[in-house]
Amino acid sequence: MVSTRNPLNIGAAARAMANFGFPRLRVVNPYDVAFREARSAVGAAPLLRKAEDYSSLAEAVGDCRLVIGTTALGHRGLQHPLRRLEYGARLIKKAAAEAPVALLFGSEKFGLSNDDLSHCHWLMRIPTVDAGLSMNLGQAVALCLYELARDSKAAQARPGKIARASAGEAEQVTVMLLDALRASGYVNPKTAATTEEKVRRLIRRLDLAERDAPVLMGMLRQILWKVNGS
Amino acid sequence: MVSTRNPLNIGAAARAMANFGFPRLRVVNPYDVAFREARSAVGAAPLLRKAEDYSSLAEAVGDCRLVIGTTALGHRGLQHPLRRLEYGARLIKKAAAEAPVALLFGSEKFGLSNDDLSHCHWLMRIPTVDAGLSMNLGQAVALCLYELARDSKAAQARPGKIARASAGEAEQVTVMLLDALRASGYVNPKTAATTEEKVRRLIRRLDLAERDAPVLMGMLRQILWKVNGS
Repeated sequence: MVSTRNPLNIGAAARAMANFGFPRLRVVNPYDVAFREARSAVGAAPLLRKAEDYSSLAEAVGDCRLVIGTTALGHRGLQHPLRRLEYGARLIKKAAAEAPVALLFGSEKFGLSNDDLSHCHWLMRIPTVDAGLSMNLGQAVALCLYELARDSKAAQARPGKIARASAGEAEQVTVMLLDALRASGYVNPKTAATTEEKVRRLIRRLDLAERDAPVLMGMLRQILWKVNGS
Repeated sequence: MVSTRNPLNIGAAARAMANFGFPRLRVVNPYDVAFREARSAVGAAPLLRKAEDYSSLAEAVGDCRLVIGTTALGHRGLQHPLRRLEYGARLIKKAAAEAPVALLFGSEKFGLSNDDLSHCHWLMRIPTVDAGLSMNLGQAVALCLYELARDSKAAQARPGKIARASAGEAEQVTVMLLDALRASGYVNPKTAATTEEKVRRLIRRLDLAERDAPVLMGMLRQILWKVNGS
């Protein structure tokens, strides 16, 4: 984080790093008071206490093989390859498997300066709708780290389903509901057969979960007991 | 947002909504002072001014066909299907194409209550490393909206490459560098042929960008002029 002013943003960045498993935070020329405040923030304390403090960007990224700048893509002329977060994160993951990679965030107000950007191999932007409205710094950090930690396979795999009730269980519920309806005078004897079919189809459409079938039956048993003139 | 306390978080959520193109913010029982403060925050003003204020969750989601709760997956027993953000967002996108979907966020301290959760069809969690450390609310909102707006194709497509210098341009640079090196006394006449090959290979390894070749030639021209005793 380069020249960050707001302690809440340093704290939010550190918290997002802890959330997604990125341990090394380096700050370059932070606003001193803000940095000291942030160090004392809740939750991110261990990561912030270990944050390394540099007075120049060149030193801060000295041991990194790849240096990536983040940008809101404002008015600046494009002097670097600019990659969307979804694609840039893939390149960073590959590179980070072999050598340290630095991901730079600039100040809340001005972003990274042209001097900061000249240290970068390429730039990355978050695909927001309106390029005119920049992102909150803490949120931008969280998004980049989320994308780096994101498991694209998780988008495909369907997690464990909830077990559905069997046809037998559905029929037990149907029978009890019909009993309760008959006892309540809901069923007209002339159309009883149609009603029975309607109720049976309705219960099938509910596609009850296995664990909900006994709950419903318990309710119906109680209602039936009450209706039958306890 | 249900029972949110901190105006900064309401503001951050609204800003993320503007960033990713989600226009309708509904708040349920916000802490009044916080909500009024947030309405006056910079950047998100239009979206916040239109925010709808409800006194019950049931009313707030009344017109939605699908209601999804977000959770940090703490100590609560799992009464709902729980989906990872990557997968859950796909389901939400599909559903939202047909009817309104509500995405619920709870208070900073307690998240959604069990009563809130009972209004949900299923729950979604952000895949953080340490389930014990919850996310900042504004960041959590930003991540969910980013994932909903995320373009998975963008992760594949390689954006426009920077044009590389042609072999001819690389050779021009090589020749000028060799001239400068000879004029500076760097080249030992006995090993001149080897040096020339080394320099040529070095320039090829640099894989110069097309636009960098003339810049380098300008530098070398100036150096050569100076070395040759201007």
